Amino acid sequence: MSLQHPPLHTVHVPLGERAYDIVIAPDAIDSAGEHLAEMFPGARFGIVTDENVAAAQLPRLLRSLDAKGLMHTEIVVPAGEASKSWDRLHTVAEAVLAARLERNDLLIALGGGVIGDLAGFAAAIARRGMDFVQVPTSLLAQVDSSVGGKTGINSPHGKNLLGAFHQPRLVLADLSALETLSPRHFAAGYAEVVKYGLIDDEDFFFWLEANFNEIAHGGPARAEAIARACAAKARVVTADERETGDRALLNLGHTFGHALEKVTGYSDRLLHGEGVAIGMALAHRFSARLGLAPSQDTGRIEAHLKNAGLPTTLADIPGDLAPTETLMDAIAQDKKVSRGKLTFILTRGIGKAFIERNVDPAAVSAFLEDMR
Amino acid sequence: MSLQHPPLHTVHVPLGERAYDIVIAPDAIDSAGEHLAEMFPGARFGIVTDENVAAAQLPRLLRSLDAKGLMHTEIVVPAGEASKSWDRLHTVAEAVLAARLERNDLLIALGGGVIGDLAGFAAAIARRGMDFVQVPTSLLAQVDSSVGGKTGINSPHGKNLLGAFHQPRLVLADLSALETLSPRHFAAGYAEVVKYGLIDDEDFFFWLEANFNEIAHGGPARAEAIARACAAKARVVTADERETGDRALLNLGHTFGHALEKVTGYSDRLLHGEGVAIGMALAHRFSARLGLAPSQDTGRIEAHLKNAGLPTTLADIPGDLAPTETLMDAIAQDKKVSRGKLTFILTRGIGKAFIERNVDPAAVSAFLEDMR
Ligand SMILES: NC(=O)c1ccc[n+]([C@@H]2O[C@H](COP(=O)([O-])OP(=O)(O)OC[C@H]3O[C@@H](n4cnc5c(N)ncnc54)[C@H](O)[C@@H]3O)[C@@H](O)[C@H]2O)c1
Ligand SMILES: NC(=O)c1ccc[n+]([C@@H]2O[C@H](COP(=O)([O-])OP(=O)(O)OC[C@H]3O[C@@H](n4cnc5c(N)ncnc54)[C@H](O)[C@@H]3O)[C@@H](O)[C@H]2O)c1
Ligand SMILES: [Zn+2]
Ligand SMILES: [Zn+2]
Repeated sequence: MSLQHPPLHTVHVPLGERAYDIVIAPDAIDSAGEHLAEMFPGARFGIVTDENVAAAQLPRLLRSLDAKGLMHTEIVVPAGEASKSWDRLHTVAEAVLAARLERNDLLIALGGGVIGDLAGFAAAIARRGMDFVQVPTSLLAQVDSSVGGKTGINSPHGKNLLGAFHQPRLVLADLSALETLSPRHFAAGYAEVVKYGLIDDEDFFFWLEANFNEIAHGGPARAEAIARACAAKARVVTADERETGDRALLNLGHTFGHALEKVTGYSDRLLHGEGVAIGMALAHRFSARLGLAPSQDTGRIEAHLKNAGLPTTLADIPGDLAPTETLMDAIAQDKKVSRGKLTFILTRGIGKAFIERNVDPAAVSAFLEDMR
Repeated sequence: MSLQHPPLHTVHVPLGERAYDIVIAPDAIDSAGEHLAEMFPGARFGIVTDENVAAAQLPRLLRSLDAKGLMHTEIVVPAGEASKSWDRLHTVAEAVLAARLERNDLLIALGGGVIGDLAGFAAAIARRGMDFVQVPTSLLAQVDSSVGGKTGINSPHGKNLLGAFHQPRLVLADLSALETLSPRHFAAGYAEVVKYGLIDDEDFFFWLEANFNEIAHGGPARAEAIARACAAKARVVTADERETGDRALLNLGHTFGHALEKVTGYSDRLLHGEGVAIGMALAHRFSARLGLAPSQDTGRIEAHLKNAGLPTTLADIPGDLAPTETLMDAIAQDKKVSRGKLTFILTRGIGKAFIERNVDPAAVSAFLEDMR
């Protein structure tokens, strides 16, 4: 295949017969037709997207598919986390069947993490499993949710509790799509980029600090940051596809973060990445308090997140925060509590996160009370 | 493990890391607690069953789990094909979450094919995949649906169009459970037993003819028939887990059968196995008409199915049958029609079925018209 504009970066996810590439390029959407025609001859495509992305990016994708004469149908859902619901999944799955897409045809998830999770799950269950392609258009989706095969929807019992492991056949991360993403969502996605540095790669964190200006303004460092984040995620996923071990490290900042998202109603009050930013700051602060990590690391992390426009403390959340007791309930629901202990991702400093299964809930509760 | 009553037969399904055993015994339910306690230490169990089976067989299972001190919760749905629905799947999946069953806990599907398909699908999606155990209580489920990992529900667009491949960890086929199954459902399940002989094992078919009396009355030949059928299914599934090739042979009789089920509204007018019986007779008759198979084989097959209390002709279906045109529409919907041709399982005689992708719809239509 000779693409007009070769991709800037390609990251391979070596999952055996489920292996796939992540193509990172400014025109990944414009060259989608070329990629898909070559990889899936004769297939038809069901494009799942949300109303915002349909307005901002769908026309580019349609032009690209049409230029190669690929058959397609569009399934557009409302934007927002509420679309990760049982009813919406049903609508999408039945629309796939109504369009008579067969097991050799594909779904394309064009959008942020909500669309990737929803469309990926629909692909997992329609006709007992159809192939799908991720075309992530938010920074969060490009560096995190589109890679690794976790798909799903929310339940009244909690986030992402219904779903499937279903790997995409290809990920096309289009850098120009980020131009139409809101700055607030860009910042939220950036929290997940920082996360990879904090987990196990201090060099990456230092590099992010040094190159933040260019990343924020769309220079070559942005593509590199995305590629390095994807490579980090690919590495963890490859080592532990079904999260029976180290994949849990990716939850750094997420136990606090999920609890904060829950008590703020999964609303615009606090985006997922914003919750993660606060959660990472808290995880470092808590580790320092336990004497595990140097406290100057916490300060350095908070400064960088703030510089990127992200919240880092409970006080940064607009409105009245629920009482500590309610936060603790949310934490206990998120994580399996075994023999009265909590599992947390703690850290020995920047790039030195680890899984700790023996965290005392009373210590967490006292810590949160002090942080208010 | 030393079971009080060792299983009569154990069939292994060698699917690598998804391998499992099918245990066939008169008291498989009574020894379930022993098996489960040994295989899944510390796990809790969500038992999914229907109202009929809850009355007839659930008490035995509960006694067995209680004797081993295993924690369990019950999820009971109405009996019948209508439970393979989107709404019912939701009820079951949310009940699993409400019971706080975790990824290390298990679902148990206690019932016929409807329960196996529904509970297996719920297990596939709850918490992105929980393990489950099949405890099939109908003959059809024991010889067919509980083995092979196809799970799913129906859509307005067709049967089994939403689902997942999700292998059970263990299958416990309890022979005594068949005592409370209606004779009509026993006969319907027997059609699938005969099918294995017709596909590729004429010796098995002849053996079934010779031993039918004992099979019908519950002697040792019944256990052997079930074990041989499971072994046949296991062989096909192992060779082609995701039905990309020869697994399609298991659809012998099912193209006609599904069309007849559809036009009779998936109702008590025609059970799945009854449709398969007529479908197998028609597939043989059609193959004979094409000069592919000896017509005395058709007669012999029909005689045996009739002897087992099964219908073999269109006229055997109670009520007015839909016109041939409607049947042809149903056939075209069931199978992918490529370049105007139909895919059918045809045969060169007893034990000599093959996949034919080039069947002329006009020939099928003329044949069906003559069969009325
Ligand atoms: N599957 C995983 O591994 C994984 C990992 C992390 C997060 N997630 C999930 O991802 C979701 C969050 O993802 P998200 O932040 O991308 O949310 P999102 O999909 O809601 O996108 C954020 C907003 O940006 C809009 N948008 C996206 N791309 C745009 C573009 N190029 N131009 C204009 N508008 C655009 C969307 O319409 C939406 O309003 C959560 O549901 C979370 O659970 C999943
Ligand atoms: N997954 C697969 O590979 C596969 C293969 C073949 C069929 N199927 C599916 O299986 C279903 C048909 O299975 P089925 O015929 O077992 O239907 P079923 O589950 O509805 O059972 C038939 C009837 O018998 C009752 N019953 C079952 N066991 C009983 C017992 N021991 N005592 C008293 N009553 C009992 C049930 O309540 C029901 O009324 C269909 O939905 C079909 O699509 C799936
Ligand atoms: Zn996240
Ligand atoms: Zn069948």
